[in-house]
Amino acid sequence: MKVMRVSNKVVKKLLEKYKEISTLGKIDGVLGWDLNVNLPSKASEERAQQTAYMAKLISEKWLEVEFKSLLEKANQRSHSARATGDEKAIIRNLNWGAKFYHKVPKEIIIEFAETSAKSFIAWQEAKKANNFSIFAPHLKKMVRLNQLVAEHIGYKDNPYDALLDLFEPGLTAKEVGKIFKTIQSTLTKILTKIKTSPKYKQDSDVVDANVVYSADDQRQLCLFVLKKMGYDLEAGRMDISTHPFTTTLGNFDIRITNRYKPNDFRDSLMIGMHETGHALYEQGVSEEYASTPLAGGVSLGIHESQSRFWENQIGRSWEFTKFLTPILHAFYPDQLSGLGAEEIFRLFNMVKPSLIRTEADEITYNLHIALRFELENALINNKIKVDDLPKIWKDKMKKYLGVVPKTDAEGVLQDVHWSHGPMGYFPTYTLGNLYAAQFTNKMKKEVQLNELVEKGELGTILSWLRTNIHQYGSLYWPEELVKKVTGEPLNPKYFLNYIKSKYSKIYGIKL
Amino acid sequence: MKVMRVSNKVVKKLLEKYKEISTLGKIDGVLGWDLNVNLPSKASEERAQQTAYMAKLISEKWLEVEFKSLLEKANQRSHSARATGDEKAIIRNLNWGAKFYHKVPKEIIIEFAETSAKSFIAWQEAKKANNFSIFAPHLKKMVRLNQLVAEHIGYKDNPYDALLDLFEPGLTAKEVGKIFKTIQSTLTKILTKIKTSPKYKQDSDVVDANVVYSADDQRQLCLFVLKKMGYDLEAGRMDISTHPFTTTLGNFDIRITNRYKPNDFRDSLMIGMHETGHALYEQGVSEEYASTPLAGGVSLGIHESQSRFWENQIGRSWEFTKFLTPILHAFYPDQLSGLGAEEIFRLFNMVKPSLIRTEADEITYNLHIALRFELENALINNKIKVDDLPKIWKDKMKKYLGVVPKTDAEGVLQDVHWSHGPMGYFPTYTLGNLYAAQFTNKMKKEVQLNELVEKGELGTILSWLRTNIHQYGSLYWPEELVKKVTGEPLNPKYFLNYIKSKYSKIYGIKL
Repeated sequence: MKVMRVSNKVVKKLLEKYKEISTLGKIDGVLGWDLNVNLPSKASEERAQQTAYMAKLISEKWLEVEFKSLLEKANQRSHSARATGDEKAIIRNLNWGAKFYHKVPKEIIIEFAETSAKSFIAWQEAKKANNFSIFAPHLKKMVRLNQLVAEHIGYKDNPYDALLDLFEPGLTAKEVGKIFKTIQSTLTKILTKIKTSPKYKQDSDVVDANVVYSADDQRQLCLFVLKKMGYDLEAGRMDISTHPFTTTLGNFDIRITNRYKPNDFRDSLMIGMHETGHALYEQGVSEEYASTPLAGGVSLGIHESQSRFWENQIGRSWEFTKFLTPILHAFYPDQLSGLGAEEIFRLFNMVKPSLIRTEADEITYNLHIALRFELENALINNKIKVDDLPKIWKDKMKKYLGVVPKTDAEGVLQDVHWSHGPMGYFPTYTLGNLYAAQFTNKMKKEVQLNELVEKGELGTILSWLRTNIHQYGSLYWPEELVKKVTGEPLNPKYFLNYIKSKYSKIYGIKL
Repeated sequence: MKVMRVSNKVVKKLLEKYKEISTLGKIDGVLGWDLNVNLPSKASEERAQQTAYMAKLISEKWLEVEFKSLLEKANQRSHSARATGDEKAIIRNLNWGAKFYHKVPKEIIIEFAETSAKSFIAWQEAKKANNFSIFAPHLKKMVRLNQLVAEHIGYKDNPYDALLDLFEPGLTAKEVGKIFKTIQSTLTKILTKIKTSPKYKQDSDVVDANVVYSADDQRQLCLFVLKKMGYDLEAGRMDISTHPFTTTLGNFDIRITNRYKPNDFRDSLMIGMHETGHALYEQGVSEEYASTPLAGGVSLGIHESQSRFWENQIGRSWEFTKFLTPILHAFYPDQLSGLGAEEIFRLFNMVKPSLIRTEADEITYNLHIALRFELENALINNKIKVDDLPKIWKDKMKKYLGVVPKTDAEGVLQDVHWSHGPMGYFPTYTLGNLYAAQFTNKMKKEVQLNELVEKGELGTILSWLRTNIHQYGSLYWPEELVKKVTGEPLNPKYFLNYIKSKYSKIYGIKL
């Protein structure tokens, strides 16, 4: 476990102050978790006010005169030769976090929180009624608030850069554009080849309204897998929410949520592995970093690499399917009767351009993200209007995926994310896929990955992740971390190679 | 619905300030609810810190210079002829609430919160291990902190008075002593008569390890009854916790908890009605009072009158049993086969001196409370020592109830309450019983109570409570409220008459 070395008095005082910010953040986390898991319908307005009040308190802590002057003092010393790596990282992270609070006026931060809560309610209504106009005014306000945030934080080329940086330190729209330029055309070509392959036409799904997988069975199966993965349920829980998520309510209270579709056993299983991937990262950070600016995963992109690693690199692998098949049969003897490991593997990996991102296969998933990135970038730069989103959405879906939503509920309204407010983190989902492939490539050189997975022995894999990634929390920024772990910067080729190798086998074609 | 009349600018400003205190209180409520319903075991220490931090924030709000000076200004004006009733009550309640925060040093308040959380964990361990010595050091600390609180708040005769007043404005140990003097000897006499009656000897219970009432059935039955009572589940929930409670997390978020004993259908039903009684009071306060010092029930005694009204005056009545019997048979056809309304009524009302207060019948319940009152009063006045509690407990149980716990887990450790810290609210449980009987006596003059209950038409009853009690929230203090509703101050005779009338019928004896 990574030891923390801090001797500087100013940094020590900053850590004391920061502990309050961390505590407030976790309390706010409890409100958010409860909102999504339990809140009675009539309580949403007041919960929104409570959350906005927490945002105000957190904001005030960042703005405290003493905190600011301590941070200034620390900045003067951070270049000192005597500063430890931990001290430097603490100061760097505090400056990064403070940027938002010191540059964006408090009123905007509070308005953001209030708008977000109301916007979430409006989005729920709009989706239910399949009526974008219910949500549009809220989204307009959120776009405007995001623009204001970007203006206050400042940027060089593109206001969207200011937002991206809040989730992935240093990331720019240019960089994201470059990544998509590299992967998008290849993925589209692969998709075209798959769609014309004979096996693609043979694909048939198992979703059948007459075949029921009980919620309790799904939950028990998930718990079995999560425990195998190493999720500590004495420091976590799995509850139900419409939109699954992972949240940190305490250093020993990292919770995930799931949902249970009655006619599909795959959904909750993959969500469970995905969210547990996030939770394992948080549970694996050195305890010495608890409640400091080095606690928690370093960025959304790296976080997503952990969730996608478990969901895709492990969960959807041939080896894991072989391991899981007898267990699946034990849970669903009648429902899956007659299906062997090969059929089940196919069920986990069918490529099918579809309307909903969260249900997308590993190839088309990133095309969904390309679409969001382009839309967000254009919205923030006033290149498109909120009112035109439904139409643009449909056009781009047709162009990138070849499918067009009939309703806005299945289109622009499908995700909860824009209702929450922050823009700039969709691209981190694709970054996560790329990081995951790059980490896996490295891991395979040091660990007999396939053999272990086939035996269901996942402990060694978690150990590797803990040693190489988790324990460091937010010590190394993404770029530094990827280099430290894999010896080179982010390189999309590992993801493309992984996709080509996997899907050429599945569809029996050359990619 | 009670309209709020506030025109004074100072009071308006105070209300603004108070809204923050109210918000912080409800956020703290979410933490507490989550602690009892969901918290993973390893998270308890940090949750304790989070709660202590909330206590600090709330304390700081009460201590804000501006708030204090506004309150001083308001006090000068509160005697003005132009002050409305609402304004006077707001100022009175703020002074009452401020007493704790302005007189007790912040450090003690925070220490209280921290000790309470640790003490709760120790109590759980102690009860499990049946080892009082695990809990004793924490209880000693809590007694000492309660004494410090009393000293700082100040009192005339008895430090315990300072604590009683925090839960029941104006209540004194002398007053409580007088009440118990009136009722205790009568209840003991009644108990003796019942114990020697032929019917007492025929009483036989249904608890049987082979007869199972599923948790889901129990929950559904409760929900049926709670809805009949008028509990708004869109502004509330019913979850599971070891120690059932009601809590206000928002003006439209009043939650209750319950527990399901596998072999007894009565426990969860009566708990459900009890907690819903609390929740209906909170849900019934005028919306105009929301988030002001007039929101919420006025005192623990009046609160308990509402819970005990629904649990005992309604839930354990002959008329309600008649109404409920066919429903009980629909839920538990096999388990209750052969039992008619009369037998079920007996099951709900068997008198039996027992070890556990929360399972006690309506007569012996108050003898349990007499015991707690004497112990708390003696502890706070240093007349007895914490270490001697297990022995004194047993002696008093023998004297008052004629039964002696074999273990401390069933004795002094049975309740969670002392682990939470505050002392001085046990007597409000008996006050609640007395208030409930006095309110019922009045209600029966205006409402055809028995007829309505027998038909399961509870709406008129709730309306009466809303009109006469609930809507006023904390506008009238207990003494004033009881006079306003019933035309006279608290009078224990109504409770004694109720008990005599009910139990003379049940046991066929003259009481």
